[in-house]
Amino acid sequence: MGEFELIHELFAPLATDPGALGLTDDASVFSLPKGVEAVITKDVMVEGVHFLPETDPARVAQKLLRVNLSDLAAMGADPKGYWLGVQLRKEGAHDWLATFVEGLKADQATFGVSLMGGDTVATPGPIALSLTALGTVPMGAALKRSGARPGDKIYVSGAIGDGVLGLRAAKGDLPDLDGVDRNYLLGRLECPTPRLALGRALRGFASAAIDISDGLAADGAHVAEASSACLMIEAEAVPLSDAARRVLAKGLTTLEELLSGGDDYELLFTAPVARAGEVEKLTADVPVTAIGEVTAGAGVRVSRNGAPLSFPKGRAGGGFSHF
Amino acid sequence: MGEFELIHELFAPLATDPGALGLTDDASVFSLPKGVEAVITKDVMVEGVHFLPETDPARVAQKLLRVNLSDLAAMGADPKGYWLGVQLRKEGAHDWLATFVEGLKADQATFGVSLMGGDTVATPGPIALSLTALGTVPMGAALKRSGARPGDKIYVSGAIGDGVLGLRAAKGDLPDLDGVDRNYLLGRLECPTPRLALGRALRGFASAAIDISDGLAADGAHVAEASSACLMIEAEAVPLSDAARRVLAKGLTTLEELLSGGDDYELLFTAPVARAGEVEKLTADVPVTAIGEVTAGAGVRVSRNGAPLSFPKGRAGGGFSHF
Repeated sequence: MGEFELIHELFAPLATDPGALGLTDDASVFSLPKGVEAVITKDVMVEGVHFLPETDPARVAQKLLRVNLSDLAAMGADPKGYWLGVQLRKEGAHDWLATFVEGLKADQATFGVSLMGGDTVATPGPIALSLTALGTVPMGAALKRSGARPGDKIYVSGAIGDGVLGLRAAKGDLPDLDGVDRNYLLGRLECPTPRLALGRALRGFASAAIDISDGLAADGAHVAEASSACLMIEAEAVPLSDAARRVLAKGLTTLEELLSGGDDYELLFTAPVARAGEVEKLTADVPVTAIGEVTAGAGVRVSRNGAPLSFPKGRAGGGFSHF
Repeated sequence: MGEFELIHELFAPLATDPGALGLTDDASVFSLPKGVEAVITKDVMVEGVHFLPETDPARVAQKLLRVNLSDLAAMGADPKGYWLGVQLRKEGAHDWLATFVEGLKADQATFGVSLMGGDTVATPGPIALSLTALGTVPMGAALKRSGARPGDKIYVSGAIGDGVLGLRAAKGDLPDLDGVDRNYLLGRLECPTPRLALGRALRGFASAAIDISDGLAADGAHVAEASSACLMIEAEAVPLSDAARRVLAKGLTTLEELLSGGDDYELLFTAPVARAGEVEKLTADVPVTAIGEVTAGAGVRVSRNGAPLSFPKGRAGGGFSHF
């Protein structure tokens, strides 16, 4: 089966937007309604680096799409479409891709997005994927990292630390985990939920927002840097899942690990104190928890009962770094 | 040096568009003037598949950007910005990337585009790159592959067949080539010129257009299929460079190879006979040559002095296929 047959059989049915031109042209066409602008993000995933080789290709597809949608959520954007780059080994390419496409198909229905174009090539190396996602936002309403001001309260959505525990579980590093907790944590790792409704709801009153991909501490530092302010976080206020609490109670993880591990895909955001009442009502999509306060200064300071928490070297400020 | 330092030092200076937000946010923002729509394309390049490992990283950058701009040219779009995905081995990453960025910088000046965002990750495998390019076109004016009609004339820009000869030269397969021809052919392979001014000029009167990446025969077949018509091409009318003519005269290539080799990045387009006079004036940017006629039927038929030309198996209809 050739490249063009793969595109025709597997990808063309995903190109539901007319601007994708059925994937038969050199590029796709996209127009924006009046008063709206585009928000565009791109992420890359490599087998053995971002996902384990044995991961179900449908789950790989969903994670790839969802981490990009999470970036759109952090900007307050509504997702519309995406462009896909696929590098595959020739052996088994069709079967891998057929399952991968099933994952995309399911998530297209969930999130209302269309494949718009892309490129599929052979590689002698690991499977690698890139995805460029496009969303829309009312002109000027995109949330940014740079608006946190001293006095603002700091919030996170959902629960923090499940991503790193999911990764440890996938690697066989938490053998005593019960089945329910294992499935929950693996699901959080492999199939995160982009907080799109929350991001949309935050338009106009969050002063800064980011999605937590590098870890709460590191992504907090990104907001601090972009905003020229300090994020003071109370570790004990940070919401944990029941599964994470049980792993913590057994002494198999630490608050430091949970607050610096990556892959949570929750939103970290700040809002003026005057709007705290509105923020506390934002529980339709996902719970939101206040975890600290913005002050003058720089960086992230996480404390537990007033004592500073220190993070594993290289994780406090920068999060996971590839190089 | 970490990932964030790489971005800050090397990539941030390329993010000249304010919508790129200095590469410090989750995504970038892009708005469109009234009456204009976006054209978006994406291509992937893998070391050892699309470029040789010893290729100058600056040339790799230029090729990556230019093959995407060539897709925009084929749609008649003006390039604006691009999103970059980079997979690099850790060893030597900074040096490779520093040279790669020099190539991007030079081409940003040439083509007036800005880096808008992306993702840089480590890989244990070959270097791999993906680029998503965004251009703009007046609403409804994008050129497509599907409008060729019986009676239309078929044209190509520039010269055909240099790409495959450049690849053979790079692989050491044309040892007797003189220095000037070698440099010319390698330049055509590694640093193609996207026919942007021609694409723009063709808005409103080309009935179909495509850029020749898979080879003249294969890309002609793509137009034929999208247009439900037949492209009759006169092989002897197809323009060749002086270098290609010399290689041909020495018996070191064939017309079949030149007309089916990939990587030319010229435009193949069709236009109604009534507008032939206008087409023939379109020589400001690059010469344009009539090479045949659209008829009822299907596929591409290439003939030389009335006799059909046959192509190497797997190249006539489909061009290069990865799988």
